[in-house]
Amino acid sequence: MARRKRLGKILPKKASKFQKKMGKAPGTITYMGRREGGTSVVNILEYNENVLSEHIPGDIDAIVAHKELPEISWIDIVGISDEDFIAKIGKRFGLNPLVLEDIVDTHQRPKIDEYEDYIFGVFKMLYINNEQEIVYEHVAMVLLESCVLVFQEMDDDVFKGVRHRIKNKSGRIRTRGADYLFFALIDAIVDNYFVVLEHLNHKIEELEEVVYDNPTPEIAHEIQMIKKEVLRIRRWIFPVKELVSRLIDTENPLITKDTKVFLRDALDHSLEINESIQIYREMSMSLMEMYMSNMSNKMNEVMKVLTIMASIFIPLTFIAGIYGMNFDHMPELHYENGYYYVWGVMIALFIGMMIYFKRKNWL
Amino acid sequence: MARRKRLGKILPKKASKFQKKMGKAPGTITYMGRREGGTSVVNILEYNENVLSEHIPGDIDAIVAHKELPEISWIDIVGISDEDFIAKIGKRFGLNPLVLEDIVDTHQRPKIDEYEDYIFGVFKMLYINNEQEIVYEHVAMVLLESCVLVFQEMDDDVFKGVRHRIKNKSGRIRTRGADYLFFALIDAIVDNYFVVLEHLNHKIEELEEVVYDNPTPEIAHEIQMIKKEVLRIRRWIFPVKELVSRLIDTENPLITKDTKVFLRDALDHSLEINESIQIYREMSMSLMEMYMSNMSNKMNEVMKVLTIMASIFIPLTFIAGIYGMNFDHMPELHYENGYYYVWGVMIALFIGMMIYFKRKNWL
Amino acid sequence: MARRKRLGKILPKKASKFQKKMGKAPGTITYMGRREGGTSVVNILEYNENVLSEHIPGDIDAIVAHKELPEISWIDIVGISDEDFIAKIGKRFGLNPLVLEDIVDTHQRPKIDEYEDYIFGVFKMLYINNEQEIVYEHVAMVLLESCVLVFQEMDDDVFKGVRHRIKNKSGRIRTRGADYLFFALIDAIVDNYFVVLEHLNHKIEELEEVVYDNPTPEIAHEIQMIKKEVLRIRRWIFPVKELVSRLIDTENPLITKDTKVFLRDALDHSLEINESIQIYREMSMSLMEMYMSNMSNKMNEVMKVLTIMASIFIPLTFIAGIYGMNFDHMPELHYENGYYYVWGVMIALFIGMMIYFKRKNWL
Amino acid sequence: MARRKRLGKILPKKASKFQKKMGKAPGTITYMGRREGGTSVVNILEYNENVLSEHIPGDIDAIVAHKELPEISWIDIVGISDEDFIAKIGKRFGLNPLVLEDIVDTHQRPKIDEYEDYIFGVFKMLYINNEQEIVYEHVAMVLLESCVLVFQEMDDDVFKGVRHRIKNKSGRIRTRGADYLFFALIDAIVDNYFVVLEHLNHKIEELEEVVYDNPTPEIAHEIQMIKKEVLRIRRWIFPVKELVSRLIDTENPLITKDTKVFLRDALDHSLEINESIQIYREMSMSLMEMYMSNMSNKMNEVMKVLTIMASIFIPLTFIAGIYGMNFDHMPELHYENGYYYVWGVMIALFIGMMIYFKRKNWL
Amino acid sequence: MARRKRLGKILPKKASKFQKKMGKAPGTITYMGRREGGTSVVNILEYNENVLSEHIPGDIDAIVAHKELPEISWIDIVGISDEDFIAKIGKRFGLNPLVLEDIVDTHQRPKIDEYEDYIFGVFKMLYINNEQEIVYEHVAMVLLESCVLVFQEMDDDVFKGVRHRIKNKSGRIRTRGADYLFFALIDAIVDNYFVVLEHLNHKIEELEEVVYDNPTPEIAHEIQMIKKEVLRIRRWIFPVKELVSRLIDTENPLITKDTKVFLRDALDHSLEINESIQIYREMSMSLMEMYMSNMSNKMNEVMKVLTIMASIFIPLTFIAGIYGMNFDHMPELHYENGYYYVWGVMIALFIGMMIYFKRKNWL
Ligand SMILES: [Mg+2]
Ligand SMILES: [Mg+2]
Ligand SMILES: [Mg+2]
Ligand SMILES: [Mg+2]
Ligand SMILES: [Mg+2]
Ligand SMILES: [Mg+2]
Ligand SMILES: [Mg+2]
Ligand SMILES: [Mg+2]
Ligand SMILES: [Mg+2]
Ligand SMILES: [Mg+2]
Ligand SMILES: [Mg+2]
Ligand SMILES: [Mg+2]
Ligand SMILES: [Mg+2]
Ligand SMILES: [Mg+2]
Ligand SMILES: [Mg+2]
Ligand SMILES: [Mg+2]
Ligand SMILES: [Mg+2]
Ligand SMILES: [Mg+2]
Ligand SMILES: [Mg+2]
Ligand SMILES: [Mg+2]
Ligand SMILES: [Mg+2]
Ligand SMILES: [Mg+2]
Ligand SMILES: [Mg+2]
Ligand SMILES: [Mg+2]
Ligand SMILES: [Mg+2]
Ligand SMILES: [Mg+2]
Ligand SMILES: [Mg+2]
Ligand SMILES: [Mg+2]
Ligand SMILES: [Mg+2]
Ligand SMILES: [Mg+2]
Ligand SMILES: [Mg+2]
Repeated sequence: MARRKRLGKILPKKASKFQKKMGKAPGTITYMGRREGGTSVVNILEYNENVLSEHIPGDIDAIVAHKELPEISWIDIVGISDEDFIAKIGKRFGLNPLVLEDIVDTHQRPKIDEYEDYIFGVFKMLYINNEQEIVYEHVAMVLLESCVLVFQEMDDDVFKGVRHRIKNKSGRIRTRGADYLFFALIDAIVDNYFVVLEHLNHKIEELEEVVYDNPTPEIAHEIQMIKKEVLRIRRWIFPVKELVSRLIDTENPLITKDTKVFLRDALDHSLEINESIQIYREMSMSLMEMYMSNMSNKMNEVMKVLTIMASIFIPLTFIAGIYGMNFDHMPELHYENGYYYVWGVMIALFIGMMIYFKRKNWL
Repeated sequence: MARRKRLGKILPKKASKFQKKMGKAPGTITYMGRREGGTSVVNILEYNENVLSEHIPGDIDAIVAHKELPEISWIDIVGISDEDFIAKIGKRFGLNPLVLEDIVDTHQRPKIDEYEDYIFGVFKMLYINNEQEIVYEHVAMVLLESCVLVFQEMDDDVFKGVRHRIKNKSGRIRTRGADYLFFALIDAIVDNYFVVLEHLNHKIEELEEVVYDNPTPEIAHEIQMIKKEVLRIRRWIFPVKELVSRLIDTENPLITKDTKVFLRDALDHSLEINESIQIYREMSMSLMEMYMSNMSNKMNEVMKVLTIMASIFIPLTFIAGIYGMNFDHMPELHYENGYYYVWGVMIALFIGMMIYFKRKNWL
Repeated sequence: MARRKRLGKILPKKASKFQKKMGKAPGTITYMGRREGGTSVVNILEYNENVLSEHIPGDIDAIVAHKELPEISWIDIVGISDEDFIAKIGKRFGLNPLVLEDIVDTHQRPKIDEYEDYIFGVFKMLYINNEQEIVYEHVAMVLLESCVLVFQEMDDDVFKGVRHRIKNKSGRIRTRGADYLFFALIDAIVDNYFVVLEHLNHKIEELEEVVYDNPTPEIAHEIQMIKKEVLRIRRWIFPVKELVSRLIDTENPLITKDTKVFLRDALDHSLEINESIQIYREMSMSLMEMYMSNMSNKMNEVMKVLTIMASIFIPLTFIAGIYGMNFDHMPELHYENGYYYVWGVMIALFIGMMIYFKRKNWL
Repeated sequence: MARRKRLGKILPKKASKFQKKMGKAPGTITYMGRREGGTSVVNILEYNENVLSEHIPGDIDAIVAHKELPEISWIDIVGISDEDFIAKIGKRFGLNPLVLEDIVDTHQRPKIDEYEDYIFGVFKMLYINNEQEIVYEHVAMVLLESCVLVFQEMDDDVFKGVRHRIKNKSGRIRTRGADYLFFALIDAIVDNYFVVLEHLNHKIEELEEVVYDNPTPEIAHEIQMIKKEVLRIRRWIFPVKELVSRLIDTENPLITKDTKVFLRDALDHSLEINESIQIYREMSMSLMEMYMSNMSNKMNEVMKVLTIMASIFIPLTFIAGIYGMNFDHMPELHYENGYYYVWGVMIALFIGMMIYFKRKNWL
Repeated sequence: MARRKRLGKILPKKASKFQKKMGKAPGTITYMGRREGGTSVVNILEYNENVLSEHIPGDIDAIVAHKELPEISWIDIVGISDEDFIAKIGKRFGLNPLVLEDIVDTHQRPKIDEYEDYIFGVFKMLYINNEQEIVYEHVAMVLLESCVLVFQEMDDDVFKGVRHRIKNKSGRIRTRGADYLFFALIDAIVDNYFVVLEHLNHKIEELEEVVYDNPTPEIAHEIQMIKKEVLRIRRWIFPVKELVSRLIDTENPLITKDTKVFLRDALDHSLEINESIQIYREMSMSLMEMYMSNMSNKMNEVMKVLTIMASIFIPLTFIAGIYGMNFDHMPELHYENGYYYVWGVMIALFIGMMIYFKRKNWL
């Protein structure tokens, strides 16, 4: 199946979306991301233990038909900037306007909201793109009785493994309900956090080495950047733990007891991730300390060179200055070996200074 | 409708209001702000699904008449320094003296108090004025059965969007009760926090760049100012989350179940805001660190210049000093090419030093 | 009525009271303050809606008589170093020895203890004296059925407003019970915290300016002093919030439901105070950072002057040194305009240096 | 009664006790302190309202006889390195092996364990010895029905006051049960924490003054030492609060309601202590900051002296250098008053410099 | 019995295991450690009060036979990189696939999971190897009715003491059930944490001394390393406390009441460990502060030497420069004792300077 890129153009960073949203009624669908003007691409994967089909639906009605199929269907919607399209989907699936608002609100923090007929979740997918940057993608998911709706901003995602397992009947996914699919998607999101954190870890460890070798102002800047990156990641990852807990504790029949065992596994991983991010935070803060201590070292080295040069040659120059004076009566000037005596004194002073600095461990 | 500015003159910052209040009985209405001597302007917006009217009431009785109208009325009172007027309003609407005290206490922290017949809330509106400064405005609101009383200090506010929706019948506001109006006003306040935080974010990011390029003492001062601004914003914004939670959990019949769904949305946003402010706090604290590290760099650069100049020229001066001595017997002075030899030594020394500093990466 | 000063002499700061108390049985009355050897002065204010009288009782029996009067009586005891007197009072009013110990224990942290017939509270009054210093005064209060006992260390207090309201029948105090008086005293204590915090705020803001203009070692010392002051204030103020909560939650009939509404107002203020003190703490910690950054700036400035002077004149001196050498053959010395050429070279060097430093923004 | 010192020799600090304990079964009695090879000295104090006797028991059976006496007995065992002896005591009094292990485990943190017939507590006595050092002594106590067992490591303790009250019938201790004795011992331990904290306070304040006057590297070291001392004290003192709370909340009949009133007083003091230690922690951390700021000041002063000397004399030396040159044609050299003119210029320069530095506030 | 080393080769540190795991179904057994390609060695210890046998089983069936023996059996599996083998074991013992996944997931944080027929635990063994490094080894344990399964990564472990006690019938282990064995293994793991923490303590104290004597950049690097080590240890040790608590609170009949008494002892130790690690954390953070303060001291010392040398000799050189000038009329040059007068002035200046610096405490 072809997945076409019909995502809108990227807006400049500072265009205030919040200003635009102000004063609107809650439930107003206002796309908050930076990819205005794109269209949405829908892809439907329909399966049960025996059958499997995948297709791109012609119109909205073709999408909604999957809502109550005997098979499980995964309706994947890429591109959320078309507010009208989202509104239509919402209406057909009976979603609350507040849910629709959150689907397109790319600033919405991760959360789970339970409604009578469905469970709504907002997550952030984090993954490394080809430029080795961390991508943050807003993803909203709705669990209905035999169907999972996935809304994502961009073409790329972290669900390749899940698709593969469905298509290849690998693991237990083909034999289970929509709630297991919902779990599997969350699991894929959480699993990918490990990859991102590992990437972050490598970046921090690289910086650690550079700071040690050559602390330049650019490095200080990069340290600040990584500190901010850790803060941002923490913000999007931290709530996931609490959110998975809520899915485990819910009495909503949409989540079966069988799936909760697996959710507990995802909870374990959320805890691990939160611990890691905490550690990376402390490591990134230590980097700045390290930087300052190395700067201080460099300065010390510079000062030692200056002090040694000045301490040795200023007194010697003084001595030379003495015998450069033009007094009529300066007996030393007329000594046979006066010049050599002075050299002797100067060399002795020089050696004495060297010993002194050696003893002080400055050389 | 004309909204006249009849706000009092602004007092100097250090005039202690607390001193003035000390010893008074609780429930004494004591205006704590800095706009003494103004009068209050009242504006009433009255509506239901079908009708809409707006007017400035002639006297207190005309205001109170709206308390139990079949229509919803929004009674907007601008200017709270006229203690007698507030007392009269309070008496007619049956408000507790402690509520009246808090209405005019501009230092009161955000809170919700439930009374038998009404719910009382204190908030802080934050918005950016034309001078691009953040304005903090105390606003108190009382939810009665079919009426919402709003007390604000200054003419300007963040409720333009709500007024517009009422007048244009946009959204669901015209079909709902006073509790939805109460929510809509809180929602408008919270929505505006995003705008203010975005403004703060831009200021922090600007400072980040300036600190990196040119860390002057003035910048250190500005960093301290922004740190204090973050503290102040946090103080007024943080309690809102807890306060909205209380409105959601209340069993008070004044808040309907329908409105609580919307309050949950406002709660989401309060959580987001609290996370953001926390991040801005850490970013503002990092700024100072960045400043110190750049100061340290500048110092290092200064010291390197000094050390290089001194290390090169002090020894050379010493050599010149040697041959400036006036000893009778200094054979070198009489060498045919003595002068040129000395130049050779000095140039060799100079080149050696340059290589040394180059190797140390100081050049 | 005359309020005589019969407080004992102030002990030197380091005399250990704890040593003295060690090993004694709990409930032993041991005055822990620094005003040994004074006598206690008692003043009784007796009132109800209609009557009012004030007098200094002749003996203990005259005091105890007020315990169960139909009128409310406020028994104000100034001076707590006379352990025997306190013991007698305690015996007559039936107070637990542990209560008596705490009344004279000036180190006791703020707390509320409920006993069968009375409620016992310890507070710290904070106020600004004439020397503009913050005074910490231990105050213990006992609420009985129609009487409030107040034990304070020194003559001065923060209850002037309450006395005034009683004497002038202002507010509702004359129409209410002893619990309202108890509340009014707590309220007066809490209200005064605002005044003290405002004073603290001014001191911090003054220091902020001074640090910015002229960071001397004395300023660093003052910053440390204000940090300690904030710690001390926080210690005595923080528990008040929890303590007022306990009075609100108690089921003790000594506190009526009517008074609890007012206590809730005092709770609001305790929360505000705790937030303020937290902010002052962060501001006082920022002061030190500011100080260090300004010190760093000053140092930078000093180093720039040195570097500029040395970088310009050391090379020039070297050139002068060259032509001060006494070699027989130095052709330049015999040039017609050799001297002027050298001046030319030196002036060129000087200008080049100036341009270099200008470009580096060091001038 | 004679209290002989039969404590073992003190082991070197680094001998690992943990290594020795590894792999042993839980409940194995392994003395973890550093006073190996001593014997235990037992002293029994037996009393009720009327009788009092004290003696050193001949053998184990003589000790155990006191377990269920009609009188209260306080069995004080000094020296816990004799593992066999402890085992025998434990067997006779029916103590759990885990209790015995903890009695001799000097690293055991403070705790209360309730067993069916007894309550077991571990504490740390802190006191100042004659060398003005803080001593940490492990003490374990067992409360039985009419008997309290006290196990301490060394001869000295903080129970002198309790012994004195028992022997002199002072306070209420002679009229109460074993639980009151148990409380009185805890109270004595807690009371002594105040003395230790006061000592710590004095040390911190002394350092504050020294840091201000003369910040040497030794002072930095002492600051680190005091920071570690505060950490250690906090570790042993902090759990006491929670532990006393547990004694108050227990439903164990060994602790009577009467005694709980007194435990509440001890709880107050534990809270006070925890607040104090927290404050001392912040004060000790501020010391380092103070040190750094004063170091920075000293450096600044040093640099100013250097800069002033160099800035004044380097230019003057340059001028002297000019007229030390040997050009054939230097008209100034032949001016009648050339020498005096040069002096004039140099003095003018000197004065100009002084004014410049004065203006900069560097002098 | 021979314990052969058949562990796989160690992978390079950066090979991402997470990448490999991504997209796989939960419950997929994926070895996450760095010892790929080894085989598992199984050792079975079977015992009750009277009998004891130890053997290496021939095949899987020989292992499973021990699951429900009347004797207790300890099945020790060394090497977990053979995913197929683990899968077979899992199948035979009826373990959940999620358990199997966690057995080989060396990144799994410590935890306890209860299943119907067994309790599953993950721990980290920490021990010091021969190179005096801290080794972190993942260990998973399954408690069945009369059998404990132990999965460990490497040959070495901390269970030598437990094996010894079983073989020598020492302590109570031979008379108790599988739950006591399970406890004894946890106890051995926890006991070893003390040894590791002591090792860490020594390393920190060593660094403290080195930092004080000679703060080099290498030391700063080592301080960072130890800070990271503390973070890592904390991560693996901290959860143990919560985990032992869960075993104590469980109602699972696999854990008897008798064993819970012992678990409470392990809980005590977990608390102690957590307090220690917290203290080491603060100590390691203080090290950096100490380092910076000593660096600052060194710099100060360097600057003082420079300042003293320059301040003394620059003015003296200036004086010599004066009398090196070649003016025609310089009367002093012709004084009989001019030369000696100048020496007098210079010596006086020198002495004055020395006194000045002495007074400033710079010498
Ligand atoms: Mg809105
Ligand atoms: Mg946001
Ligand atoms: Mg949103
Ligand atoms: Mg995508
Ligand atoms: Mg997973
Ligand atoms: Mg798992
Ligand atoms: Mg008041
Ligand atoms: Mg305020
Ligand atoms: Mg107020
Ligand atoms: Mg306004
Ligand atoms: Mg909103
Ligand atoms: Mg929303
Ligand atoms: Mg006592
Ligand atoms: Mg105290
Ligand atoms: Mg006390
Ligand atoms: Mg007083
Ligand atoms: Mg008040
Ligand atoms: Mg109020
Ligand atoms: Mg510095
Ligand atoms: Mg053990
Ligand atoms: Mg320990
Ligand atoms: Mg232990
Ligand atoms: Mg002792
Ligand atoms: Mg006590
Ligand atoms: Mg007390
Ligand atoms: Mg997976
Ligand atoms: Mg991990
Ligand atoms: Mg895992
Ligand atoms: Mg192993
Ligand atoms: Mg153990
Ligand atoms: Mg134990």
